[in-house]
Amino acid sequence: MENNRVLIIDGCEYHNWDREIFEIIRAGDISAINATCAVWEDARATLDNIGRWHSMFEEHADLIVPAVTGADVRAAYEAKKTAVVLGFQNSSPIENNIDLVGIFAALGVRIIQLTYNNQNLVGSGCYEDEDNGLSYYGREVIKEMNRLGVLVDLSHVGERTSLDTIELSTRPVAITHANPTWSKAIHRNKSDDVLHALAESGGVIGLAIYPALLGKGSQTTLTEFCEMAARTVDIMGIEHVGIGTDHHLKHSREDKQWWVKGHWTRSLPAYMDIVPAGWQGEEVQWQDWFQTPADMQNIVRGLREHGFSADEVAAIMGSNWLRLFDQVFPSSRP
Amino acid sequence: MENNRVLIIDGCEYHNWDREIFEIIRAGDISAINATCAVWEDARATLDNIGRWHSMFEEHADLIVPAVTGADVRAAYEAKKTAVVLGFQNSSPIENNIDLVGIFAALGVRIIQLTYNNQNLVGSGCYEDEDNGLSYYGREVIKEMNRLGVLVDLSHVGERTSLDTIELSTRPVAITHANPTWSKAIHRNKSDDVLHALAESGGVIGLAIYPALLGKGSQTTLTEFCEMAARTVDIMGIEHVGIGTDHHLKHSREDKQWWVKGHWTRSLPAYMDIVPAGWQGEEVQWQDWFQTPADMQNIVRGLREHGFSADEVAAIMGSNWLRLFDQVFPSSRP
Repeated sequence: MENNRVLIIDGCEYHNWDREIFEIIRAGDISAINATCAVWEDARATLDNIGRWHSMFEEHADLIVPAVTGADVRAAYEAKKTAVVLGFQNSSPIENNIDLVGIFAALGVRIIQLTYNNQNLVGSGCYEDEDNGLSYYGREVIKEMNRLGVLVDLSHVGERTSLDTIELSTRPVAITHANPTWSKAIHRNKSDDVLHALAESGGVIGLAIYPALLGKGSQTTLTEFCEMAARTVDIMGIEHVGIGTDHHLKHSREDKQWWVKGHWTRSLPAYMDIVPAGWQGEEVQWQDWFQTPADMQNIVRGLREHGFSADEVAAIMGSNWLRLFDQVFPSSRP
Repeated sequence: MENNRVLIIDGCEYHNWDREIFEIIRAGDISAINATCAVWEDARATLDNIGRWHSMFEEHADLIVPAVTGADVRAAYEAKKTAVVLGFQNSSPIENNIDLVGIFAALGVRIIQLTYNNQNLVGSGCYEDEDNGLSYYGREVIKEMNRLGVLVDLSHVGERTSLDTIELSTRPVAITHANPTWSKAIHRNKSDDVLHALAESGGVIGLAIYPALLGKGSQTTLTEFCEMAARTVDIMGIEHVGIGTDHHLKHSREDKQWWVKGHWTRSLPAYMDIVPAGWQGEEVQWQDWFQTPADMQNIVRGLREHGFSADEVAAIMGSNWLRLFDQVFPSSRP
């Protein structure tokens, strides 16, 4: 079935990375991932994380390659490797220094989510009681990301900050990992207003497999996931829907507590309408059709069986992300 | 006139500190200052600044002493030295880590201004287009500052974040350096709503000498300054008005550019309705009756001549601040 092979991009994965995980991703024949390398970290701690990626790129060069352009992703697809696009789930690494956008861009970071749940220097996260949109600094940051070709990610961002950003940004933006609120009515998911604005601006949403973002959780069937994809395509158009599994492997309970609490609170935030599975140490239950990214071909199959054409399946599985990367990232390596 | 000697506290000074400056402050017989040791700095850079203070406390022990309690201020008054209360003009040093409030409290920091002009993790600054009040983390920070006895400062803080804070805080709070907006209608000054709420909660405002915050700038006469004080007392009550000169000596043009722009923008922020004198390298023009803190006795004289009683002069010049320090700071050294 080699001639049916699809170029696959996962809009967000955040594992406790090691060789076994890269083998799992290769087993799914995923040609690119947006790999989270910062959540609450400041600039200094993020350098450690990116440094670790440089070591892993050397050590596991048979499986993964760094990616800073769409061409890098196409080359990885041909070579049957996985292109790793470095991304942040927070703008915390750029701190209060506009020049740090360029510093991290020079280090290969191509995707920055503006906020992670909470308010920060740039804007409001999806869990604040109120969202007053982009701050003055936030507007400076968007302009700088546009100038340098860093993709804006709105996944954990508040509604008004998201709409402000879509309006201000001169390049299309992404929601790398979220679902529509009509799938599950939680703050982390996205309203039809945001989905419409994203589509009109040329952006892409990555539909998430992570059960906490799905109405039926880990009981969601592959058919139901594909029905959600179809309804999202009806709303946004086929060019604007992709996959962003939000899959995460090998993290400790402490890692997951840190995602929720950072170091900024000592107790479970009262606002949380989802808490990462594994928070209390229980096993994470992923859907039986997507235990790990190795199961990615199940989504390809599911979309085909749901009636999407070959071109439509290719669009959702990767070519929409690839088009967005081409539009936003600098076209050549620095 | 020793028996007329008044205990004087300056709610905010931010010099490029050296021995000559401490001699100037002693010439004004100022018994305590809130000394700014962070504006845009993160935790690490603030450690350098506090470390420098530790060196200065040793080197200039004949002039200055560290202060963490009201008793330290009283002792400095008796010894004719100046008690230095370490303060931040931003919550940037505590970053996104609630435990850093306690770390800096243990290092002697007793006053933290929540925001410096811009939005941050805690709330909105006075120059943001909109202010949606305290963030979730901001509420955690206020509770922790209350618990540890760190005084909240609202000087450069936005209106709604200020009102939220006054309502939430279980201890009275401060505006260490600002004037009423009816004196000069700029974002840095404070509305009657804020002044009323501050007074009702038991807080204190430090009226500023800094000419950019006064309607007639450096042409403001001592009489006009004392008239502003009298009208503020009429609004708030004599217990709630103090002095916070916002005086700053020996800073370079680059320092002042950094106050305005930090590292977060490359150009003069469009929002600025005041820009520090000296920004363009010109000489700062201070009022002829307050060239430096050595002229502090002129204010004592001016208030007396305006008709304030001896007790009222003492309240404005220092005893209101001292009462607030006693109410908020831990009563003994750790």
